[in-house]
Amino acid sequence: MGGDPAPRGDFAVLTDADLAAFREILGDDNVRTDARSLDACNEDWMRKYRGNAGVLLLPARTSQVSAILRHCNARGLAVVPQGGNTGLVGGGVPVHDEIVLGMRRMNAVLSVDPVAGTVVCEAGCVLEDLEHALNARGMTAPLDLGAKGRCQIGGNVSTNAGGLRLVRHGSLHGSVLGLEVVTADGTVLDLLRTLRKDNTGYDLKQLFIGAEGTLGVVTKVAMLSPRKPTGVDVAICAVGSFADAVAALRDARTKLGDCLQAFEFFDRASLELVLSTLRGARDPLPKTKAPFYVVTETAVLGKGWATHRVARRRVRAWVGSLRKRGVAIDGVVGEDAKHASALWNLRERISVALKHAGAVYKYDVSLPTERMYDLVVETRNRLAAAASASTSASTSFDASKVSVLGYGHLGDGNLHLNVSSPDGYHPGLEAILEPFVYQWTAEQRGSISAEHGVGAMKPRELAHSKDEASIEAMRRVKEVFDPRGILNPYKVLPPPSTQHRSKL
Amino acid sequence: MGGDPAPRGDFAVLTDADLAAFREILGDDNVRTDARSLDACNEDWMRKYRGNAGVLLLPARTSQVSAILRHCNARGLAVVPQGGNTGLVGGGVPVHDEIVLGMRRMNAVLSVDPVAGTVVCEAGCVLEDLEHALNARGMTAPLDLGAKGRCQIGGNVSTNAGGLRLVRHGSLHGSVLGLEVVTADGTVLDLLRTLRKDNTGYDLKQLFIGAEGTLGVVTKVAMLSPRKPTGVDVAICAVGSFADAVAALRDARTKLGDCLQAFEFFDRASLELVLSTLRGARDPLPKTKAPFYVVTETAVLGKGWATHRVARRRVRAWVGSLRKRGVAIDGVVGEDAKHASALWNLRERISVALKHAGAVYKYDVSLPTERMYDLVVETRNRLAAAASASTSASTSFDASKVSVLGYGHLGDGNLHLNVSSPDGYHPGLEAILEPFVYQWTAEQRGSISAEHGVGAMKPRELAHSKDEASIEAMRRVKEVFDPRGILNPYKVLPPPSTQHRSKL
Repeated sequence: MGGDPAPRGDFAVLTDADLAAFREILGDDNVRTDARSLDACNEDWMRKYRGNAGVLLLPARTSQVSAILRHCNARGLAVVPQGGNTGLVGGGVPVHDEIVLGMRRMNAVLSVDPVAGTVVCEAGCVLEDLEHALNARGMTAPLDLGAKGRCQIGGNVSTNAGGLRLVRHGSLHGSVLGLEVVTADGTVLDLLRTLRKDNTGYDLKQLFIGAEGTLGVVTKVAMLSPRKPTGVDVAICAVGSFADAVAALRDARTKLGDCLQAFEFFDRASLELVLSTLRGARDPLPKTKAPFYVVTETAVLGKGWATHRVARRRVRAWVGSLRKRGVAIDGVVGEDAKHASALWNLRERISVALKHAGAVYKYDVSLPTERMYDLVVETRNRLAAAASASTSASTSFDASKVSVLGYGHLGDGNLHLNVSSPDGYHPGLEAILEPFVYQWTAEQRGSISAEHGVGAMKPRELAHSKDEASIEAMRRVKEVFDPRGILNPYKVLPPPSTQHRSKL
Repeated sequence: MGGDPAPRGDFAVLTDADLAAFREILGDDNVRTDARSLDACNEDWMRKYRGNAGVLLLPARTSQVSAILRHCNARGLAVVPQGGNTGLVGGGVPVHDEIVLGMRRMNAVLSVDPVAGTVVCEAGCVLEDLEHALNARGMTAPLDLGAKGRCQIGGNVSTNAGGLRLVRHGSLHGSVLGLEVVTADGTVLDLLRTLRKDNTGYDLKQLFIGAEGTLGVVTKVAMLSPRKPTGVDVAICAVGSFADAVAALRDARTKLGDCLQAFEFFDRASLELVLSTLRGARDPLPKTKAPFYVVTETAVLGKGWATHRVARRRVRAWVGSLRKRGVAIDGVVGEDAKHASALWNLRERISVALKHAGAVYKYDVSLPTERMYDLVVETRNRLAAAASASTSASTSFDASKVSVLGYGHLGDGNLHLNVSSPDGYHPGLEAILEPFVYQWTAEQRGSISAEHGVGAMKPRELAHSKDEASIEAMRRVKEVFDPRGILNPYKVLPPPSTQHRSKL
């Protein structure tokens, strides 16, 4: 998990005078120091990262965020902005005693423009609430995540969340049209335009997309909002090898073309886990015990039942042709919305099943499509070697109980490698996985964080994906927006001392 | 045209020793000081901007770009990177005696990956050459411009070119996956990944997209390359008002859905100019003299004639329904590729027709869709007022000869306002147009440069689109990558002294 936590920086310690200043800005109710509030914001949902903040601040307006940061910057108090706290790399919880800036009260949808296809909302807006507001206007959000019921749009932007429909709508670097951001000294940057095109100088907003709150606090978001599809189809195909899964992807790009909204995959181990862990989950193709499954989601925009009927016929014909040509062993297309949702849940709920099964080491990497699954195989090999070695008591954990799962966004080249350890987290197991996973990924010129971000988990590993000159440039960009380093310290950037250590 | 040129900065003057150093790096042939080479690189294609460079350098490798910049930075010599020199705001030509860094020898397509849908090429690659290379693999570039036969991909990235198919493929901030960039002191930033997802720290490459060479020289580009459509249809509809053009857009988004690749418009004045100026141009709907025309381009990806036949039927049905409901007065769908191309040319060649007609004041603004054409009307009103005033000899040019044209990318909210002056550029005319156009645009929270960039034309007007805090942040970002300010000076950022003048 990236080694020991970074030592506490040279920040001020929270005083009663600070609390009084915050109460002045926010009112008493929105300066929380009670144990329940602090417990909830000090720990991430996986219970993997835990900090020790002494106060949770709940601003309702940008001017309050600005006043809080002005105070903290002047005093040298460190701050961590927090959205829905659904991140996977510890980016949204304190490491030491940083002040937590909770964004949940800033949750308004400010404007929706169906002609232009744009929406403006506050950063604390929950993704699912935004989706409902957009659906009511025949529109949809340009991203969809398993955590949509809790994650907030400001957090999505700050993590540059990818999610399930990136194949169709692309990355947030393309979908976000404007941001309002408060930088460390309380300066409000008004970059909140809803224009599809704006080439007036440097596109500063891009820097805050994926900066995980280390350059500024995102307070408002303007983004493209595509039309809501009039018909959606989900299909699952069983394939005999990973190469066939890639062949199916290539074929889907050609035959399903623009309709393709998501192209996902999971391996047999992932399916078995879901089937054995989650109530109501059923094998989609019970006659086949295939090693891999690919999931396609297609969507059509045209109006009228006829159009969707044509589209579904096309998906069925595609699945049929995969079987006929032997690319797929078997396949099923959702008969209706309920069936489609049951199929889709098999993929979407793998991470929930994993959480039920115990501790999980989660890796989120981008790799060249064809080589993606090799990392899963190599990881299994390393564990198997450890398991046989452990008979001679050279390791202190039972490697045979550990399972390695591979699933993810095949259409985006994004693998989620998950190592499930029913006995809990274990340094010996971690030593087998790291830095191996990062080094292997770096060798393929992949990314050690495809969509989860860097957070507190991977700063020391950043050099596996970025060269020294780029990391140095990042440091200098950080100095532009947060010269005292109060914003989300210990995250994203490696501590200066480890930079050389982790050089490739 | 943005007022007087900025005074020469405190840069060194080119010496024989510098030329000798450049010859050492590049060889004699690639250090050009002959009149013909210098003439071609000192002036933009519109003959509107002219500099006085004493040398044109033609590197063939990134290491040479790095060595040149290292030398120039150490000596304090200013440099302007130049691509195809097709820009419209003077961003690619010298203002004074900057050294011109011509990228045309770095024109290789380095790799194409049809499975991942990605391409990597050198910055000097001509867009049309890239398109041909991609077409051979069943792929297409994610942007298309009228200047494609000459513009270079590095210039496209540096301008953040929008172009004709942004409706379908989105902005380059989403399509560019990686860049190799050389910053002012010769540092090579290797941000050249082909991954669709990479959340490892700040997305620095985004800063160079649209920075017009003021932060670094783009040397290599990796980008998404979508599949080439299997069938394309073009339709032109005549509409009775701008409101009907917007209604047609709304309808196209619903009915043509994903197929929609471009949604353009032009007014009657634009059509008349094309018909009277360009040989072979014909009125697409000769029975109708409509005030506005909308052009749609639709594309399908599915294989086989049947799919395209279905798609064309859908476009025809859509045009028919617009006429039936009175949204359109008349309409025509291209019968075959030749006819489609003739229709499309009417829109694409407006700027060529304008060039034939004399001097042109070109404005490229983003505005809320519904209000877009109001700017054309307001501009005409101002000119009409000036024309009637000119009978009393209060102005010194003949306003009645000036024509105001409106056309552009309706689907992107991007208006090209063009003021054609057969008698040449004239300060009195410019005074009517500026700062009016910028102020009016700022009042609508539009952008004073939608896709052309800022260049030498609009730095003093930047405050119409960006607040003071954002401009100050841009200056500090510039200092990170180019502390001595040698890269493309006098462009993009306003001179410090004018910042307060142009505050809104």
